Amino acid sequence: MRAPAKREEEILAAAARIFQRKGYHGTSVRDIADAVGLLKGSLYHYISSKEDLLARLFEGLLEDTVAELDVIARRDASAAERLREMVRAYARAIIANQDAVGLYLREWRSLPAPELANLAARRRRMRTLFSAVIADGARAGELAPGDPNLAALAILGMCNWMYEWYRPAGRLTPDAVIDELAQRAVRSVRP
Amino acid sequence: MRAPAKREEEILAAAARIFQRKGYHGTSVRDIADAVGLLKGSLYHYISSKEDLLARLFEGLLEDTVAELDVIARRDASAAERLREMVRAYARAIIANQDAVGLYLREWRSLPAPELANLAARRRRMRTLFSAVIADGARAGELAPGDPNLAALAILGMCNWMYEWYRPAGRLTPDAVIDELAQRAVRSVRP
Repeated sequence: MRAPAKREEEILAAAARIFQRKGYHGTSVRDIADAVGLLKGSLYHYISSKEDLLARLFEGLLEDTVAELDVIARRDASAAERLREMVRAYARAIIANQDAVGLYLREWRSLPAPELANLAARRRRMRTLFSAVIADGARAGELAPGDPNLAALAILGMCNWMYEWYRPAGRLTPDAVIDELAQRAVRSVRP
Repeated sequence: MRAPAKREEEILAAAARIFQRKGYHGTSVRDIADAVGLLKGSLYHYISSKEDLLARLFEGLLEDTVAELDVIARRDASAAERLREMVRAYARAIIANQDAVGLYLREWRSLPAPELANLAARRRRMRTLFSAVIADGARAGELAPGDPNLAALAILGMCNWMYEWYRPAGRLTPDAVIDELAQRAVRSVRP
């Protein structure tokens, strides 16, 4: 028998996949139970509701990414280098979790208020990591002046939009896509 | 009595607003009829179904924007200047239709296949207008080499993402936001 943590991951991954395919509203808890080979009643050992699944899916995703970005932002490197690595890490996270990201962007309005507030705080934290590095670079004269928050939103938009167009079987390798996006993101804040 | 075209615009605007607030699936045709002061039966003089409303909302939006971008793309100006004006026009269209854009990005999967194909073709046409100008500039050595299609998607992402964060009552005026985004977009393709 699998360890519970492993089982939980499996349930979250299956939920992301099915939500993406059938839509959040079109998916039943039964669909998710079937996909992981559990009876509906047994699935409730792991989750309390469909909304709970949705919130945990996003939370895990954001938490891991924020932690990774935070480490890069503190590195002893130029602002442009840190920004480039942050965009690479962020873009990589979107590609690796494309289903969940698409789902999140479409469905976050379906979440109960406390979960929403929690997720909004993590999103703000993520944006602040980007805008702080950009502001750092602008102060040092290394990056262009301007609104660091708007610059961060522009870069996040560049990356987030991948959830609509990125195809794993596309012309370019994932690394080529990530490198080129990171390069364009850094250029967008260069003087 | 209002002219039918005016009435139709009013219905489309009300639908966009209510879809945004209650979600597409949570909105009934009755809600829309109430909002424009019509009986549900009378509303059916103007629309055939909720899906039809959704498709027409997106179609009108895309058609107007594609036409405007097409005119700018053909201007006798440098690629960077044309790109800047295209981004400005595109960003302005998103700000002016924020509800409909958000709705579209969340709900296009709900549309019947023919409407979806029609809308996908218009979106491709729009992206091609951007990538062609970028490719032009790269050939002339004025813009950076690289994948013009990826560059266009990065810029569209920068702009599209506004549907999530733009607030009419925000710190910056709409023009300041549009100008700064356009500047960052052009920089992202500069050598």
